[in-house]
Amino acid sequence: MTESFEQLWADLAAIGKDPSTGGYHRGGWTPTEREATGWFLDQCAQRGLAVESDGIGNLVAWWEPGASQGAGLPGVVTGSHLDSVIDGGAFDGPLGVVSALSAVDRLRAEGFVPSVPIGVGAFVEEEGSRFGMPCLGSRIATGVLTPEKALALEDRAGVSLYDALSRAEVDPSRVGLSSLLSRMGTFVELHVEQGRALTAPVGVASSIWPHGRFRFTFTGEANHAGTTLMEDRHDPMLTYAMTALAANKQARLAGARATFGRLAVEPNGTNAVPSQVTAWLDARAASAEVLESLLAAITRQATERAERDGTTVEMVPESVSPVVDFQPGLRDRLSAVLGDAPVLPTGAGHDAGVFSDAGIPTAMLFVRNPTGVSHSPAEHAEMDDCLAGVEALATVLKELAR
Amino acid sequence: MTESFEQLWADLAAIGKDPSTGGYHRGGWTPTEREATGWFLDQCAQRGLAVESDGIGNLVAWWEPGASQGAGLPGVVTGSHLDSVIDGGAFDGPLGVVSALSAVDRLRAEGFVPSVPIGVGAFVEEEGSRFGMPCLGSRIATGVLTPEKALALEDRAGVSLYDALSRAEVDPSRVGLSSLLSRMGTFVELHVEQGRALTAPVGVASSIWPHGRFRFTFTGEANHAGTTLMEDRHDPMLTYAMTALAANKQARLAGARATFGRLAVEPNGTNAVPSQVTAWLDARAASAEVLESLLAAITRQATERAERDGTTVEMVPESVSPVVDFQPGLRDRLSAVLGDAPVLPTGAGHDAGVFSDAGIPTAMLFVRNPTGVSHSPAEHAEMDDCLAGVEALATVLKELAR
Repeated sequence: MTESFEQLWADLAAIGKDPSTGGYHRGGWTPTEREATGWFLDQCAQRGLAVESDGIGNLVAWWEPGASQGAGLPGVVTGSHLDSVIDGGAFDGPLGVVSALSAVDRLRAEGFVPSVPIGVGAFVEEEGSRFGMPCLGSRIATGVLTPEKALALEDRAGVSLYDALSRAEVDPSRVGLSSLLSRMGTFVELHVEQGRALTAPVGVASSIWPHGRFRFTFTGEANHAGTTLMEDRHDPMLTYAMTALAANKQARLAGARATFGRLAVEPNGTNAVPSQVTAWLDARAASAEVLESLLAAITRQATERAERDGTTVEMVPESVSPVVDFQPGLRDRLSAVLGDAPVLPTGAGHDAGVFSDAGIPTAMLFVRNPTGVSHSPAEHAEMDDCLAGVEALATVLKELAR
Repeated sequence: MTESFEQLWADLAAIGKDPSTGGYHRGGWTPTEREATGWFLDQCAQRGLAVESDGIGNLVAWWEPGASQGAGLPGVVTGSHLDSVIDGGAFDGPLGVVSALSAVDRLRAEGFVPSVPIGVGAFVEEEGSRFGMPCLGSRIATGVLTPEKALALEDRAGVSLYDALSRAEVDPSRVGLSSLLSRMGTFVELHVEQGRALTAPVGVASSIWPHGRFRFTFTGEANHAGTTLMEDRHDPMLTYAMTALAANKQARLAGARATFGRLAVEPNGTNAVPSQVTAWLDARAASAEVLESLLAAITRQATERAERDGTTVEMVPESVSPVVDFQPGLRDRLSAVLGDAPVLPTGAGHDAGVFSDAGIPTAMLFVRNPTGVSHSPAEHAEMDDCLAGVEALATVLKELAR
């Protein structure tokens, strides 16, 4: 007898919740993320699902049909991730994992016998909140990111991925292309929608906008805040401030998204004009052309202002993801089996996009988000919509594994 | 035989210098600041000067005249501080301490016999770079800051002053009004000038501009940077950015100074619209009226922009120092004895301002700063000007202790 979705949800939601904010910080290989992963492994064990792990620690728990019915063949994998952004919400990631377990429970309770294996997946460091690289687990698994580059990544405390894995008792020498891929015949990720674009309880993804992270380094000259004449300064904070406002305005004009959410100021002292401001821009748009012209406009305005401020600005793309168009046939089939569920794009990157780019037929289901808030403790979905999501996922799994 | 000024300067400058930036981070009671203090105590011991310490750790090393000539009486104290801002320069503070030792060496070598004691002072945490309170040592010494408030101050790592003192083996229960004050008949602080206002090698201070630190808290709502429509956001980064630009513009218009040099962003993640931006404003002006109207203008523009952004802004003064007018009689006497040295105001706060406010006749000497750069590794004064500063200080001490 397995637990209800509500019970599973409540059990996982309790793990690592910050009592002061109500949010989560489950960076990859941190204690709270490991605890959530431990919970997942327990759930798989309770269900008798055989868990397969790859070198970086992505997990797929297999529900194998009888030997005569395709055990060991490529199957249908569904799932998402358990890590979170810093002070993130409960739904982004975990909803897809818990819904996958619950949909499997539902199919088994109905006596459904799949023709191919059904896998429940949990992929590591999807948010990139610790090592700055979104979809770290799926990028390594598919070879988009080499082990050499990956293992050299460092978190904000200067701990390399190599060392973080070693500390978590994961063997870094095994990191690389994933053995899991050969058995992912189809991948379906259920995820909470992250804007307000979905008005029905459940929808199907059409595409992921092209998007990227771009590091802007504004360099000036440290000086005394009290004595240095305003006209003698080379204050990179001013160049940054204008660039942040310009990014917002340009994104509005382009119908795109641009956000400066992360900053590092040197020396960051109250009575010192800063010597340097490092700012990370997250930019996304409906097409590569719009994204490119958005970035060009922001960089041009930053450079012009830098000339005025006597500072310099350097822009380095840290990660850029092209548009992902999910397989149209699969998308339309799922929309149809769900009673003409709405089809919509998203501005958010997902492991599903990485697997789709790797040639695996991939789809995504979205569960309605009433407020559009995400990456925040206030992120929310109604329980009825979550249950509709489980039902839709079960329907999709039956369709794909019948 | 004591060392030359050049040798003393070179010895102290080596302590705690960051090889990567060429700057210093001597926050109060940090290892590098303690090492500099140890150097000072060694120098005093070599000269046979009796060092007196108060509860917070301010030091005065006394050169007592013979018993018949005023030993134990209130004397003339000169000196400055050994702590620095984060990645600060070599001169701000240490120049006043080394010049004081060197001036005493010079007077002794000349056979000068002072009529009253001459003290060489080193006051703790003048920059406030660790506990956020400038002139911490002198404020506690003079009672402007109560021991209760002071000991509860925390550094950025959450270490209280109480704990920092305990770890440095300073007894927190002794912190309070200073026993040193009763013997500070006059105080003279020599300091590197911090703008480009002084064109002669040495000048005399007229006043310290009123100034303060004001904490602005911009609060919005965390959200997903990729999926949240620009028009659905409550992004406090935008409110901050406009406020930083407004502060700069208003300060230029008012002939004043306004700087946002320190920031804290929550959650500070690349793919999250921030929930909160905390920004510290350093503001200074020639008069209290100008400072007040500058702050009012900045706060009004911040509030207007917050309404537009759907955010809130709160401003809390963390420390506000009214204008300090150094004693005009003393100022003019020193200028005259130095051959009509130029008299000029400064935008920087100093322990001299706190002691002046406490009713101690106080003066300051400035040494020329060719570039105006300060609070930066690039801070500089020419050796010839530093030697002129030592000579001027010796002249002043003779004048005041004859």
